[in-house]
Amino acid sequence: MRAAIFNGPRDVGAGELPDPVVAEPTDAIIRVTLACVCGSDLWYYRGEAPHERGAIGHEFIGLVEQVGADVRTLGIGDFVVGPFAFSDGTCPNCRAGFQTACTHGGFFGGNGLGGQAEHIRVPLADGTLVKVPGSGHSDETLRSLLALSDVMGTGHHAVASANTKPGNAVAIVGDGAVGLCAVLAAQRLGAGRIIALSRNPARQRLAREFGATDVVAERGNTAIEAVRALTDGVGADAVAECVGTGDSFATAVGIARPGSMVGYVGVPHGVEVPIDDLFHRNVGINGGSAPVRQYLPELLGDVLAERIDPGRVFDFETDLEHIAEAYAAMDERRAIKSLVRVAPAA
Amino acid sequence: MRAAIFNGPRDVGAGELPDPVVAEPTDAIIRVTLACVCGSDLWYYRGEAPHERGAIGHEFIGLVEQVGADVRTLGIGDFVVGPFAFSDGTCPNCRAGFQTACTHGGFFGGNGLGGQAEHIRVPLADGTLVKVPGSGHSDETLRSLLALSDVMGTGHHAVASANTKPGNAVAIVGDGAVGLCAVLAAQRLGAGRIIALSRNPARQRLAREFGATDVVAERGNTAIEAVRALTDGVGADAVAECVGTGDSFATAVGIARPGSMVGYVGVPHGVEVPIDDLFHRNVGINGGSAPVRQYLPELLGDVLAERIDPGRVFDFETDLEHIAEAYAAMDERRAIKSLVRVAPAA
Repeated sequence: MRAAIFNGPRDVGAGELPDPVVAEPTDAIIRVTLACVCGSDLWYYRGEAPHERGAIGHEFIGLVEQVGADVRTLGIGDFVVGPFAFSDGTCPNCRAGFQTACTHGGFFGGNGLGGQAEHIRVPLADGTLVKVPGSGHSDETLRSLLALSDVMGTGHHAVASANTKPGNAVAIVGDGAVGLCAVLAAQRLGAGRIIALSRNPARQRLAREFGATDVVAERGNTAIEAVRALTDGVGADAVAECVGTGDSFATAVGIARPGSMVGYVGVPHGVEVPIDDLFHRNVGINGGSAPVRQYLPELLGDVLAERIDPGRVFDFETDLEHIAEAYAAMDERRAIKSLVRVAPAA
Repeated sequence: MRAAIFNGPRDVGAGELPDPVVAEPTDAIIRVTLACVCGSDLWYYRGEAPHERGAIGHEFIGLVEQVGADVRTLGIGDFVVGPFAFSDGTCPNCRAGFQTACTHGGFFGGNGLGGQAEHIRVPLADGTLVKVPGSGHSDETLRSLLALSDVMGTGHHAVASANTKPGNAVAIVGDGAVGLCAVLAAQRLGAGRIIALSRNPARQRLAREFGATDVVAERGNTAIEAVRALTDGVGADAVAECVGTGDSFATAVGIARPGSMVGYVGVPHGVEVPIDDLFHRNVGINGGSAPVRQYLPELLGDVLAERIDPGRVFDFETDLEHIAEAYAAMDERRAIKSLVRVAPAA
């Protein structure tokens, strides 16, 4: 099959990989229709984190092509969304809604399980995949369904982990695809005020379209002062940290009011948690690798009902043969997020 | 007046201080009946944190003796509990329930505002003090009311910050007065299982009487394994960290299940937050300087209705003239918490 192949830093290209086969009776093989590139794929691309040579990518939607003997809830031809992690759905962590900590699970993107490919093997298919009802969905809907495989669920996890309540003033640090989805998620949860930290005009515009009521273009201490000035002098009721650097984390903590929570979903890189400041202001931190599988059913319902349109974060698209361009556009910040058309939808 | 005087590390004794007077129209002067020594007073006693020479102590109950011209809700002779911080009750942080972050507030124990004394000046009296209804309370009730000035509210803050829900398996790290109160608070919030980490037989016994269903005497990684073995292999649903050292914090994070929260109230000393572990297991941390004032009304109701008896943490008592013994008993771990009888109750 054709697939994106990670050859090394700054070298991702289309190539041939063996067709995946059912290896375990709980596996399904998916024919991928749409895939995309994640901000976290860029760490490998930039050489900031190691990745083995071979398959890559962990976001995909597609059709069930084969199922193992023990797969109960899926049939050939079902249209499914794949979250970025696989999980059995039955262990104590899955039952608690934290499928990214499944005691038998794991993550797509490595170990031969690449989503930027014509086909992907999905372990623990019953617990992992979510069937999309209906057929003949518009391209707009398909793009939004693809966003549910990671960024929309991750943005939602940030604001949910921050304990966002209706009417809250919510601040979002990070204007990447996840940060923009966090704006949309905050709006969906009924935030009264949504403050987006962004200095990029195109991203500011999409943030406003997703529901941001205020945009703060400042950074660091100036951003902290600007957000406090918008929030009674004390800070936001809930803060979503969607970057993961030391600077962004410090800003997120600084703009959180005493008694509030910073929900963080950016994988921490060089973050030192300012525990004394957290203690003295009673600010909590909560988050991690988003249990997208937990949120998929509710978010899927909202996409199909056209209440949310997270697919608008895709502002660059190409096909598998031009996968290198998908990475380059994001690396150079020409694109918020790159979509990869793999095969026509059924 | 007679008062405890901090002269320097390991030198606290009774002495003479000027009687406090109403300095601001929002002040009240309290005639202290009972006071006590806090685990945090020991940092000064042990020279681990600086403290100015003079008045000390931040936990007291007593009678209103004088009020300033602007005090509206209190009258001479009212019997009150003083939380360890003063607050106006009207700023955005107070309105959000985080009075320890009051924009006009501060803390007792320093700046001449000592609770281990015959009298204490209370700034912002209307926002700070909580009136105790009724009269002729038993000594047992008075001891429990005194515990509401800090340790019971702080223990409650730990389990509340950990998002404890009815039926939860809650683990408590720390068997000091705050940890023991956290056990009682977890029981009060309907925890299904309460795991107390303690290796001291007397404290284990009180923990069980306060509601602990399991006691883990191990420490470090062995404790983590023991708690996980009690909790489906994944860890507790909520964890209260009531010590504040690097080791206790690491244990608390280790015994928290993915998707849970560590509520922490021990002032952090040498804590390095393991952000990568938190992220990968979706464990949050939340807490800080307890807004005891927020919790006082509900806890007061439960004390008066004899539903909780946090005063049982006092296992040593003396008077102001022997204040040095109150400190020594706690320093040498002969006492969980020392009560100081200052004057007879009205």
